[in-house]
Amino acid sequence: MMRRIEQEHLEDLALGAVFLATGGGGDPHLPRLIAEQALASYGPVDLVRPEDLDDNAFVVPVGSVGAPTVSLELLPSLDEAVNTVAAFEDFVGRKADAIASFEIGGGNSLVPLVAAAAGGVPVIDGDGMGRAFPEAQMMSYAIAGVKPTPALAYDYAGNTAIFQTQSTDVYEYHIRAFAAAAGGMITVAEHTMTGKELKASVIPGTLSFSVALGRLLRQHRGPVANILAPLEEIFKPSIYGICRHLFSGKVIDKSTRIIGGYDIGEATLEDFDDPTQRLSLNIKNEFLLARIGDRVVASVPDLIVILDLETSTPINCERLRFGQRVGVFAVGCPEFYRSEAALRVTAPRSFGFDIDYVPLEALQA
Amino acid sequence: MMRRIEQEHLEDLALGAVFLATGGGGDPHLPRLIAEQALASYGPVDLVRPEDLDDNAFVVPVGSVGAPTVSLELLPSLDEAVNTVAAFEDFVGRKADAIASFEIGGGNSLVPLVAAAAGGVPVIDGDGMGRAFPEAQMMSYAIAGVKPTPALAYDYAGNTAIFQTQSTDVYEYHIRAFAAAAGGMITVAEHTMTGKELKASVIPGTLSFSVALGRLLRQHRGPVANILAPLEEIFKPSIYGICRHLFSGKVIDKSTRIIGGYDIGEATLEDFDDPTQRLSLNIKNEFLLARIGDRVVASVPDLIVILDLETSTPINCERLRFGQRVGVFAVGCPEFYRSEAALRVTAPRSFGFDIDYVPLEALQA
Repeated sequence: MMRRIEQEHLEDLALGAVFLATGGGGDPHLPRLIAEQALASYGPVDLVRPEDLDDNAFVVPVGSVGAPTVSLELLPSLDEAVNTVAAFEDFVGRKADAIASFEIGGGNSLVPLVAAAAGGVPVIDGDGMGRAFPEAQMMSYAIAGVKPTPALAYDYAGNTAIFQTQSTDVYEYHIRAFAAAAGGMITVAEHTMTGKELKASVIPGTLSFSVALGRLLRQHRGPVANILAPLEEIFKPSIYGICRHLFSGKVIDKSTRIIGGYDIGEATLEDFDDPTQRLSLNIKNEFLLARIGDRVVASVPDLIVILDLETSTPINCERLRFGQRVGVFAVGCPEFYRSEAALRVTAPRSFGFDIDYVPLEALQA
Repeated sequence: MMRRIEQEHLEDLALGAVFLATGGGGDPHLPRLIAEQALASYGPVDLVRPEDLDDNAFVVPVGSVGAPTVSLELLPSLDEAVNTVAAFEDFVGRKADAIASFEIGGGNSLVPLVAAAAGGVPVIDGDGMGRAFPEAQMMSYAIAGVKPTPALAYDYAGNTAIFQTQSTDVYEYHIRAFAAAAGGMITVAEHTMTGKELKASVIPGTLSFSVALGRLLRQHRGPVANILAPLEEIFKPSIYGICRHLFSGKVIDKSTRIIGGYDIGEATLEDFDDPTQRLSLNIKNEFLLARIGDRVVASVPDLIVILDLETSTPINCERLRFGQRVGVFAVGCPEFYRSEAALRVTAPRSFGFDIDYVPLEALQA
């Protein structure tokens, strides 16, 4: 059992988190460098299992909010996560007992470590999505009824906004508008809760799983063909259950635009031998829907993952480019996301696609 | 000298404030009804001259922020101004000693009265624009160096956002984004200051002037031709100095769209006898620029005002319609707005027009 996050875990964590990000979550390169510096200054970060947390603990989730493409250009600074939590603690007049993650995806798996290291508090082994999703109301915390606010947003220049909003749906409008107005990417503390609330809402074990997944990807660096079996094996006993290869081909088209503070667009992949065989992807920060021809082969809330065909390195959406040779995988979502309450806000229909969610296992059968 | 605002002043205040709003400021009909109810409940509101205010007084400006067209549809509730100030006082841990106005224009001349009446504090006889302008950095308070934040915004549903921002330029982005995300119109407390700071930044006497102007408009209700002389007379000794009739004609085109939280557009008026004689108006919440053919006849920061041709009732931009028969007036801006610092943020160039500001007096000469 993993008890702390140390320097040596950060590379694997970042690698695993891009896989689980299903295209989104923000680029982890700079968050990883910042986390390395934070761990060098403050020492390792204790990892606390949700079940070991005190019911009365004050848990503060922290992460970036914005369009992932912006994470490549509006670079995070060393102290954004630290200052966000400090300003939030100052506002509510209480210190965080533990830091939690919005999502295990991409850079947002690393941001909480920086705040936890500087604050000398543990980070929760778990997150609020088990992947990445584009909107706050899709977080397991919100779905389970945790209130979004008070929330504090911190921008690149140190300007802040504190929100008090009744519903997470409305909060998502407010925070997204602020992210867009403040340069496209902000750091936010929100959906704070007690230890008891966390236990009822967290997707557990995802930080340590991401490290293990990253280690596997690193050890099997090489052609996708060689990693199919190890991937199926590591996912099988996990909360995700199933991991399947869907398609291999080259990227022949990819286009996203920043609309309303999200990356919105599509990508198309073509089979190497048969140009009529194409896989298309719909994107809203994350990969939402994969279709081969008209047939849906995977959809939210299940995970859609793209790996480089030669190295098996996961590629997040903002780094997907014309001409890349890739393998596409799908991974089952945690059971939590197959509840009616979760599907109401994460199924294809909640993104405007007029199709029902069919679990990956059924699509594969 | 006027010492308080009573029920009997509200109609004239609202009428005068639509004149001074130069097209913007939000529709005053409902704010006036709300102010009537507030004065009925709490009694008249003391009017304090800036020079009589204690240097250490804590002054809280309050008003609506948003696209004026929205003020016709997203109706204000009785307690928005009151709750905004109460929530702000709660956040800063200090009671307001006096309430100030962002702008004397339209509904925003009445909103502060509601907060002042409920809080049992006086309202300042003066405002931060001497008219209405679309953006926060155009306020005399901001131009004179008053910090915009902490600022508290309150939406139609009681959700709030508290901003901490270094510059008013950046603050304007943040607050406008929140206004747009929160339905298009919010109530805000911002640019709070000491009595000493107010004295150095306020446009003085505009509340009582607006009442006097409204009284004049009411007493001369009738054709524009009959009000030309009385208008010139009332403006001459005021901080505005000059008021001139520019044009009479019918509205043959008017179009605004809500872009980025502002009403943006144009209007065209045509002479009754000579269809080649046209006056065009550029709009950003307020009337910015009036041209007859290619010749600029008035521009920001001077005021451009439209009166109904038969009744001399001022018409704000969101009520301007095809076919209306109107008279167009221009009024000189207060001296404060002819300083270099003020013109940097309010002259035509700051709105993207490639022309220099020429004072109305010079254009008329």
